[in-house]
Amino acid sequence: MEAFRRIAVIGTGLIGGSILRRAHDAGIDVIGCDPDPGTAEIASRLGLPFTADVGTAVIGRDLIVCAAPLDAIRGGFDAIAASMDDGGVVTDVGSTKTDVLAAASSLAGRFIGGHPMAGTELSGLAAADPNLFTDAPWVLCPPSTILIEPLRSLVGFVTDVMRAKAIVIDAERHDETVALSSHIPHVLAGALAGAAAASPMAPTVTALAAGSFRDGTRVAGTNPDRTVDMLLHNRQAVLDQWGGVAGFMDEVLEAVRDNEHETLIDLFTGAATLRNAVVARAMTTRTRTFASGDGAAELAYLRELGAVGGYVTGCVPSGLATTYTAETPA
Amino acid sequence: MEAFRRIAVIGTGLIGGSILRRAHDAGIDVIGCDPDPGTAEIASRLGLPFTADVGTAVIGRDLIVCAAPLDAIRGGFDAIAASMDDGGVVTDVGSTKTDVLAAASSLAGRFIGGHPMAGTELSGLAAADPNLFTDAPWVLCPPSTILIEPLRSLVGFVTDVMRAKAIVIDAERHDETVALSSHIPHVLAGALAGAAAASPMAPTVTALAAGSFRDGTRVAGTNPDRTVDMLLHNRQAVLDQWGGVAGFMDEVLEAVRDNEHETLIDLFTGAATLRNAVVARAMTTRTRTFASGDGAAELAYLRELGAVGGYVTGCVPSGLATTYTAETPA
Repeated sequence: MEAFRRIAVIGTGLIGGSILRRAHDAGIDVIGCDPDPGTAEIASRLGLPFTADVGTAVIGRDLIVCAAPLDAIRGGFDAIAASMDDGGVVTDVGSTKTDVLAAASSLAGRFIGGHPMAGTELSGLAAADPNLFTDAPWVLCPPSTILIEPLRSLVGFVTDVMRAKAIVIDAERHDETVALSSHIPHVLAGALAGAAAASPMAPTVTALAAGSFRDGTRVAGTNPDRTVDMLLHNRQAVLDQWGGVAGFMDEVLEAVRDNEHETLIDLFTGAATLRNAVVARAMTTRTRTFASGDGAAELAYLRELGAVGGYVTGCVPSGLATTYTAETPA
Repeated sequence: MEAFRRIAVIGTGLIGGSILRRAHDAGIDVIGCDPDPGTAEIASRLGLPFTADVGTAVIGRDLIVCAAPLDAIRGGFDAIAASMDDGGVVTDVGSTKTDVLAAASSLAGRFIGGHPMAGTELSGLAAADPNLFTDAPWVLCPPSTILIEPLRSLVGFVTDVMRAKAIVIDAERHDETVALSSHIPHVLAGALAGAAAASPMAPTVTALAAGSFRDGTRVAGTNPDRTVDMLLHNRQAVLDQWGGVAGFMDEVLEAVRDNEHETLIDLFTGAATLRNAVVARAMTTRTRTFASGDGAAELAYLRELGAVGGYVTGCVPSGLATTYTAETPA
């Protein structure tokens, strides 16, 4: 399988619309699909091929990007499966992945979960930005039975068309990771702001809010509907990962109670090391070439790269081989 | 008592040095004092009056600012009390206040705790900045027995010389407030980074760190010595305030476990309201004038203003009266 040439984007809000605009700018034959009449008007104004009918959108497409809201995605897969070509590949952009992979069981072998990690406070096709994904992480979660061909084509689409960083990990790991890297931070920010709100000290906390309080509560200003949807869609992973966070807090509070200076230094030194690694990750650029017959090694390479925190920035076919450019933690 | 005209700053690191430089720029007769020989050289290069001897520094001064490290402050008060003039006033810049007020008992009636809430990642007199306190909150914690005269002069020094916002609250309230507004945020940031560091997902958490994780762990990059000192110096208040934060987290986790959408919406809506109040506080400017005989009302006004989250921006004596300009939450 080569690069995708005929693409459909189902659901053209901020994320789907940005994918549609970028693919269109890249000269790809792409069509958007959304049930909202206002969105159809915006697509027409922007000169983007568009239809309100899913069946029409997916016929003859080699990649179908499902960018509808999470709850609509599940039912959507059956409609897509009923009309799409046998050779087509389907991906999505939802922020959790084990549930989506389960919902896509009717697309077995043709579905790879996706999660582009970019966004703004805006929404809708009018706010779509063809450069939204430039240099952003874009997670791909193939099922365990995937063949290399659709995954390779999708990695190439993410890196070379969307200009994002492709990170291949399995769905369970994705959900556990985002519970820690994105969802639990909302719980902590909410707890800090919520405790301050409920305290008789609320007026002086507001007056004396230091940088640490402002940073620590920033995402508590997010629309509560969005925060709650996120937590409930990734419930199990949030509950599983909470144990480590609660355990660290218990150790800190016990050491404060017992005045244990050295224990606290150890705890905060470990935390500082990870924090510093996040803001200044040293990466090494490497290329790897795989002959087309070596699909098992190519799959293993992509999965291993993702597991160590690396990502693909380029995927170039050349004759019967494929060359990846990747960044690996140094 | 009028505006302070002869000031000593004991301990000239970043905070003390910035006070020294600002007072010197304002044309006040000020002297710095620090035992460190390197600091003496920097003071000489900056043209700042300086001595290494505390007794020499404090003689004949009407305001003595104690800006030594927290552990050195306590012993320092006795040395200051032994040499200073009877009419002098003493303040400090430490980040906790009940312990400092207790340690300053030998200065009864002449000591008012202070906490300028400004700083940078730098340290030492070489990094001192005369504009460090411009528009920064500067808490003043008078003991319950204080007379209006020294407090009025210190408010005027903070607002009109240091150009900061003077917030008058009692020491217990200060410590409980900063536990929530500054110290507990370090515990939460450490827990998020520390749990990620201890997790098998550490590499992918680092790779996928969203804005929420970056903001939520920012102060986990602070020097652990400083974080731990802060927590241990304010132990009791941190432990007391932790209850509200832990309670909020328990409610969120239980609601996630039980899939209780409405409960979560309520919790995060309360949090969002406080967060939005912190970043966009509507304030009203008001002036109040007190005749010099009305000290009790003047004291009550300053304390009430601080308790509701307000602050003084100007304090101007005029004949036998004093006019305050203050910002109050609208």
